[in-house]
Amino acid sequence: MTPAERQIIVLKLDHRPERDKRLTTHVGLTARAFGASGFWTSGLKDLNISETIHQVSDQWGNQGFEVLTGINWRSSIRKWKEEKGEVIHLTMYGLHVDNVIPQIRSSPRPKLIVVGGPKVPFEVFKLADFNVAIGHQPHSEVAALSIFLDRLLEGQGLHLKFPDTTFEIEPTPHGKRVKESK
Amino acid sequence: MTPAERQIIVLKLDHRPERDKRLTTHVGLTARAFGASGFWTSGLKDLNISETIHQVSDQWGNQGFEVLTGINWRSSIRKWKEEKGEVIHLTMYGLHVDNVIPQIRSSPRPKLIVVGGPKVPFEVFKLADFNVAIGHQPHSEVAALSIFLDRLLEGQGLHLKFPDTTFEIEPTPHGKRVKESK
Repeated sequence: MTPAERQIIVLKLDHRPERDKRLTTHVGLTARAFGASGFWTSGLKDLNISETIHQVSDQWGNQGFEVLTGINWRSSIRKWKEEKGEVIHLTMYGLHVDNVIPQIRSSPRPKLIVVGGPKVPFEVFKLADFNVAIGHQPHSEVAALSIFLDRLLEGQGLHLKFPDTTFEIEPTPHGKRVKESK
Repeated sequence: MTPAERQIIVLKLDHRPERDKRLTTHVGLTARAFGASGFWTSGLKDLNISETIHQVSDQWGNQGFEVLTGINWRSSIRKWKEEKGEVIHLTMYGLHVDNVIPQIRSSPRPKLIVVGGPKVPFEVFKLADFNVAIGHQPHSEVAALSIFLDRLLEGQGLHLKFPDTTFEIEPTPHGKRVKESK
């Protein structure tokens, strides 16, 4: 199954272009690399984010990864629940990922994975079908997302083949080897 | 085995206090939460980083996590190799984690895990005993570190008990529950 067929969207809440630029980009690139089919942010619109991620897709493989910034989180989450599938919110206050991942994995429905910042509205905890903790220690939404997607796809996210690449890495023990494939 | 006994240090190269503050903090908190015993940064000294991470340890559990900023990466890596153990550099150009992790896991020696930024000196690739790729797509050093530690500790990092905590989370399906334990 390709990422686009899989329909996993990652939503980063409350993106603030000045302050969050790099972290939000890391969340988006992690979503792409680990097998999600798209990345949305709420908060202010920020074309830099979409440009950066599309540039990576141009160079390292384009699986039709969708990027939308400045969306309305409340209406997007509600619409997803009504029309698409499940909403999973990653938070240290939720149920431990290793206890709930078998249940989440067993459903074939599209998934919206919500990652927050420091202050997530309580409504998100209520709207989410699952509030999932990647451990109960504070760390990073980037770490949380990568572990969640890795568990969800049972480690296969790191072995995806990206179509239509310009560059491709030849793994090497002590250096850098990249071949151009276009 | 506690994280301190395990002797896994994470070294983030070339920290620039203004530009990297939040990302470096995320790397440090991820190191702590996923079972490393300490976090070092090279580049400029930055007491904000150590303070932020020590504050988290005060509140969420103190396993004797060491934080050092402004160290010299070259002499630290060389000294580690001579006196301590192995050096593992996380880079998308290296060998795929799933191919090398059994070998890395089989050695009980202390491990220095090096994560870079955009421009890692070629010497690091040469000095490292293992250059390990968390997949061959660009994403994030935070994601790379969390997946590497998760694989290294076979998923046990997310189940560590942190001693001496002020707060502790009671996992809950739809809300936030924290108990004070001091």
